[in-house]
Amino acid sequence: MTETQHREPANGADAPAPSRRRMFGLLGGAAALGAAVGAGGTAAGLDATSDDRHGSQTPGRPVEFFGPHQAGIATPAQDRLHFAAFDLSPTVGRADLVALLTAWTAAASRMAAGQGVGTGAVTGPPGAPPDDTGEALGLPPARLTLTVGFGTSLFTDPDGRDRFGIAASRPPQLADLPAFPGDALDPAASGGDLCVQACADDPQVAVHAIRNLARIARGTASVRYSQLGFGRTSSTSTSQATPRNMMGFKDGTANLKTEDVAAMNTHVWAQPGDGPDWMTGGSYLVSRRIRMLIEPWDSTPLVEQERVIGRHKGSGAPPGLGDEFDPLNLSSKGPDGELLIDANAHVRLAHSSHNSGAVLLRRGYSFTDGTDNLGRLDAGLFFIAYQRDPRRQFVTIQNSLAGKTADALNEYIQHVGSGLFACPPGVQPGQYWGQRLLG
Amino acid sequence: MTETQHREPANGADAPAPSRRRMFGLLGGAAALGAAVGAGGTAAGLDATSDDRHGSQTPGRPVEFFGPHQAGIATPAQDRLHFAAFDLSPTVGRADLVALLTAWTAAASRMAAGQGVGTGAVTGPPGAPPDDTGEALGLPPARLTLTVGFGTSLFTDPDGRDRFGIAASRPPQLADLPAFPGDALDPAASGGDLCVQACADDPQVAVHAIRNLARIARGTASVRYSQLGFGRTSSTSTSQATPRNMMGFKDGTANLKTEDVAAMNTHVWAQPGDGPDWMTGGSYLVSRRIRMLIEPWDSTPLVEQERVIGRHKGSGAPPGLGDEFDPLNLSSKGPDGELLIDANAHVRLAHSSHNSGAVLLRRGYSFTDGTDNLGRLDAGLFFIAYQRDPRRQFVTIQNSLAGKTADALNEYIQHVGSGLFACPPGVQPGQYWGQRLLG
Ligand code: HEM
Ligand code: HEM
Repeated sequence: MTETQHREPANGADAPAPSRRRMFGLLGGAAALGAAVGAGGTAAGLDATSDDRHGSQTPGRPVEFFGPHQAGIATPAQDRLHFAAFDLSPTVGRADLVALLTAWTAAASRMAAGQGVGTGAVTGPPGAPPDDTGEALGLPPARLTLTVGFGTSLFTDPDGRDRFGIAASRPPQLADLPAFPGDALDPAASGGDLCVQACADDPQVAVHAIRNLARIARGTASVRYSQLGFGRTSSTSTSQATPRNMMGFKDGTANLKTEDVAAMNTHVWAQPGDGPDWMTGGSYLVSRRIRMLIEPWDSTPLVEQERVIGRHKGSGAPPGLGDEFDPLNLSSKGPDGELLIDANAHVRLAHSSHNSGAVLLRRGYSFTDGTDNLGRLDAGLFFIAYQRDPRRQFVTIQNSLAGKTADALNEYIQHVGSGLFACPPGVQPGQYWGQRLLG
Repeated sequence: MTETQHREPANGADAPAPSRRRMFGLLGGAAALGAAVGAGGTAAGLDATSDDRHGSQTPGRPVEFFGPHQAGIATPAQDRLHFAAFDLSPTVGRADLVALLTAWTAAASRMAAGQGVGTGAVTGPPGAPPDDTGEALGLPPARLTLTVGFGTSLFTDPDGRDRFGIAASRPPQLADLPAFPGDALDPAASGGDLCVQACADDPQVAVHAIRNLARIARGTASVRYSQLGFGRTSSTSTSQATPRNMMGFKDGTANLKTEDVAAMNTHVWAQPGDGPDWMTGGSYLVSRRIRMLIEPWDSTPLVEQERVIGRHKGSGAPPGLGDEFDPLNLSSKGPDGELLIDANAHVRLAHSSHNSGAVLLRRGYSFTDGTDNLGRLDAGLFFIAYQRDPRRQFVTIQNSLAGKTADALNEYIQHVGSGLFACPPGVQPGQYWGQRLLG
């Protein structure tokens, strides 16, 4: 095994024995040997087991790239996000787009398996730039997933042109989002022809992945905006606990359970007949860069913070209850006859159309991007939600949240970026992302 | 134990048993009980042992805040950085500055011990904003260190005024850095009256710390700029290996060894007689936000990348040698009689005044802050170095690196931010940061 074959360190001197042993233990001697010999093919698939396809939370063990759905949607959320939106160059045509997606798929499957792109070489022919940029050499796969999405402008560009001959295949679910009251969207942080969501337990692995995809795209597509984020941050003590967002509240309590296959089919995966065939097994991604007005929030009394969210800050429990996972009862009243969950509380409005199917798989990450020019923390939530039909799901919920008189949270947040993408289904080895649309 | 006392989760239901057991195992039952009862005092010092003062790399175990030196300098580098520079409000006087440093010291010592600020309450009196912002509740201390520094403008403001009556105590070592050839400094990302370096193994813990210090400072000081960074990123397999920077090279190989007390006294800690007494036991921090021109770098052949740095990319070894820690011999020649390490290689120039004492403790972090308005990755190195006298150390080295014809690396980097701070010595319980200067 040389270091050009696999991102795991090359020789015994570099590779600490425990890690080595773990690799062998997990993959089984023969499979690990296969990866070590690296005989031309990708290592992905070596350790795919039907019961644990995208679900492994074992550190260092890769998440399977291939399958009926793209990884990174039902995959238990990794700790870190690097999300990037790309624009295609004006002169690019359908064949270039196919070539890009083919190269991206190959690179993505290698990186998900813990390998460098191309030959993986950081030390290849001295006269050529290395195939891989190298900063992830020696790092574990870190459960890297790469999830691609197609923006509305890929189907119909801003001038109304059908550059890639796919306008007729645009799913009705990919309807431009309406403008919501209170939106303060920055066009430069919104939209994009393509997006890639990179999630991993190691930020350097997520950053390396986006960087190498951007490098492969050079001349064809360039990054329009990108966002780093963090979710669960300490694996030492509380890896099963719900992470807290930058407002200090547990976030993700009442989320869709990704292991509930029926719920995933009802709410997340595009089903046969929903729209064009090429999207069956895919999902629609809505991203919103939501800035929190941290300073006013931090001077707000606890009772008001809890009224705004509609849950207890310490435990995450519904008002009056003690456990985070106690059921939310929107009509509960206190001894004074008043509603326990305020009429404008975030969870009330977010839950209000739940029973008519407005349910999301939320998969967002916190961000802190330093300070703005007034010295205020530029921090918040990079909201990401997956769903079967944004019109019935995100738009319905956001309509009930948006507007000054609705969600009490609006006083403390501002939506500054927005994206809508159709994420095609997963691929099999030898296929490329979106092949059923473009092939 | 209630959750107002300690950031560890409040009750058995929230606290997974293994973490709980580890706490008890590490701290000893009695000490842990002391922390659990939280009887008013800080828990810091509970687990201070003379042989392991700032050195613990055990996840979850706090790094001792009090001591002769500030933590965060000799402390083995944590995985994450949140660095912030602050400016004092124009109307603030010496008493306000003392009050701020007193409040900061109290909050910092609590946070380093894994507690929330103030009472630590996220669920205190409902009518008041919680003492602590809450997003680190339930997270381990994550080896958090907070290191304060005093900028040149604290001693003499831009109008030449001595606002705090300390101009006469300004150490000669804190001489304004000269302008270096090639500098492209953004004033808004440079300088600052005060700085705080927060390092932790968990980004949310580092972000929480800066945010709460900024909150305490409100009205007195505000953030001028801040920077998030990452260093070692995966603890799973290679925690002892040298991390790679965003150019894909191992960074930190030939660094000062913090366990070498004699070398630390020679090169890092201000010694009696060096300058004003109040700095004895302190150190001088130079920060440089250095952006890497990632795209040109990524299209550079391997042989050129290795010539520019002066080490092998894969192994980190000196040219012609095989092991990262093989000694660097600047006069080695190849069979052709040419120098193996190029005349303009980064390591040659950085090492050239090593023997006359120009040695640094480098403690920088990689950053990726999305993309600039041309779609180029805004990534690089947030360089931090500690030293006994910047005039003889950083300035000497940077003088040999700077300028178009000097360090071959200059073609691929740009210095865009700069800071110089005097970090006072450590404090004992009951003291505040900088008390020997301001008390
Ligand atoms: C910065 C902005 C936001 C913050 C701080 C925030 C925070 C929270 C919190 C603390 C909860 C309760 C815990 C939980 O069940 O996860 C929650 C629930 C929820 N949020 Fe948000 N949220 C934000 C934006 C949004 C947006 C934009 C949407 C969708 C348009 C949304 C949809 C939901 C939903 C569906 C629930 C679950 C409600 C239920 O069924 O109980 N949130 N959010
Ligand atoms: C983005 C900018 C920089 C990059 C990418 C970079 C990278 C590196 C690399 C890869 C090494 C070799 C490995 C090691 O010994 O750590 C190194 C060594 C070193 N660098 Fe830098 N460096 C940068 C900026 C600086 C600056 C601004 C200084 C100080 C002014 C500096 C001082 C040093 C020193 C003293 C050494 C050790 C030389 C020796 O004694 O062998 N570096 N750097």
